[in-house]
Amino acid sequence: MSSTTPSPAASARRGRRPGAPDTRAAILESARSAFAGKGFAGTTIRGVAAAAGVDAALVHHYFGTKDDLFLAAMELPVDPRQVIGPALAGGPDGAGERLLRAFLSLWDDPEISPSLVGVVRSALQPGGERLMTQGFVPVVLMPAGAALGIDRPDLRMPLVISQVAGLILARYLIGLEPIASMPADTLVATYAPVIQHYLTGDLGAGLREG
Amino acid sequence: MSSTTPSPAASARRGRRPGAPDTRAAILESARSAFAGKGFAGTTIRGVAAAAGVDAALVHHYFGTKDDLFLAAMELPVDPRQVIGPALAGGPDGAGERLLRAFLSLWDDPEISPSLVGVVRSALQPGGERLMTQGFVPVVLMPAGAALGIDRPDLRMPLVISQVAGLILARYLIGLEPIASMPADTLVATYAPVIQHYLTGDLGAGLREG
Repeated sequence: MSSTTPSPAASARRGRRPGAPDTRAAILESARSAFAGKGFAGTTIRGVAAAAGVDAALVHHYFGTKDDLFLAAMELPVDPRQVIGPALAGGPDGAGERLLRAFLSLWDDPEISPSLVGVVRSALQPGGERLMTQGFVPVVLMPAGAALGIDRPDLRMPLVISQVAGLILARYLIGLEPIASMPADTLVATYAPVIQHYLTGDLGAGLREG
Repeated sequence: MSSTTPSPAASARRGRRPGAPDTRAAILESARSAFAGKGFAGTTIRGVAAAAGVDAALVHHYFGTKDDLFLAAMELPVDPRQVIGPALAGGPDGAGERLLRAFLSLWDDPEISPSLVGVVRSALQPGGERLMTQGFVPVVLMPAGAALGIDRPDLRMPLVISQVAGLILARYLIGLEPIASMPADTLVATYAPVIQHYLTGDLGAGLREG
């Protein structure tokens, strides 16, 4: 790392303005403002680019698709799609346990957990719900349901999230014992049957009327 | 109500300082500050009284026990103990459904719901977790588990709350569809089996190691 070849970041800092870190930051700031104010559906790459004073192609170059830009704007330390991808690949059987393990591999990581807690706290403030309903849901949750190949993903995935969100609150935001200190294996054994029930079980009236 | 007999409130306004509404407000303010700063366990009626410049007996006179004072300080529009009391009286069988219906009778009430959302938002901000772990849990949740007569209430009641909290987030804070718009009966049919599982079901490793 001490070679004379400049790192990409160093090159970017020396390059023309569109390649400079402050341009990247300006795009992210513009994206955050747009997603917060207009929601995911109301935000366009073109609008984000205009507000940041750059070309739309540069936004695509730096951040990829609108989905990618949204996740980058949330400042997640990881891409949740990559983390849950392998858990989804195995199909519905046992997906409850696999998804819980993938989830805990992120949330129990002390390097990652504080950022995630910050995102959740933001999403729970007035107006922050759009982060969830117009961002996380169409970008992560619904594609996950489709990848699993379950019936009624439009109902089942929100039910899954309603339990996972409560687990997040209890374990990471509130520190409710014994959930907060429970070993990961115990947590998986306790919650996997419920997650699996929401994914593939008989939901009774919820399924018929939902 | 237009008689010449003064209402108790009017009498209090004309009375000596300890009976005046601002004294009551001062006690509540002192209580809120104490519960937020020292938690439920660290707060004493004597300390609240001293900070408000009144006698401890006056705090008891206005607010009853420390549990009552805590609930008054949270400014809940109702006493949750009275709402869930009848649901607890029937014992463990069917308690999941009864508790959900009692819960929805509060949270689906447009007169009450905004206050509850405010309390939850406060509890989810940094430091606010004490409202839950040191207030709601010892004052409402654990007595509810004891009243139900279930085994391992120390584990089962937190599991119940972890699902109910996720339901609150999805339906009332985030507005996640279809949970947000689901008819109450469908919601009960969907969630009651899971709540009942946490109350009385086989929790496997969670129960053995928890």
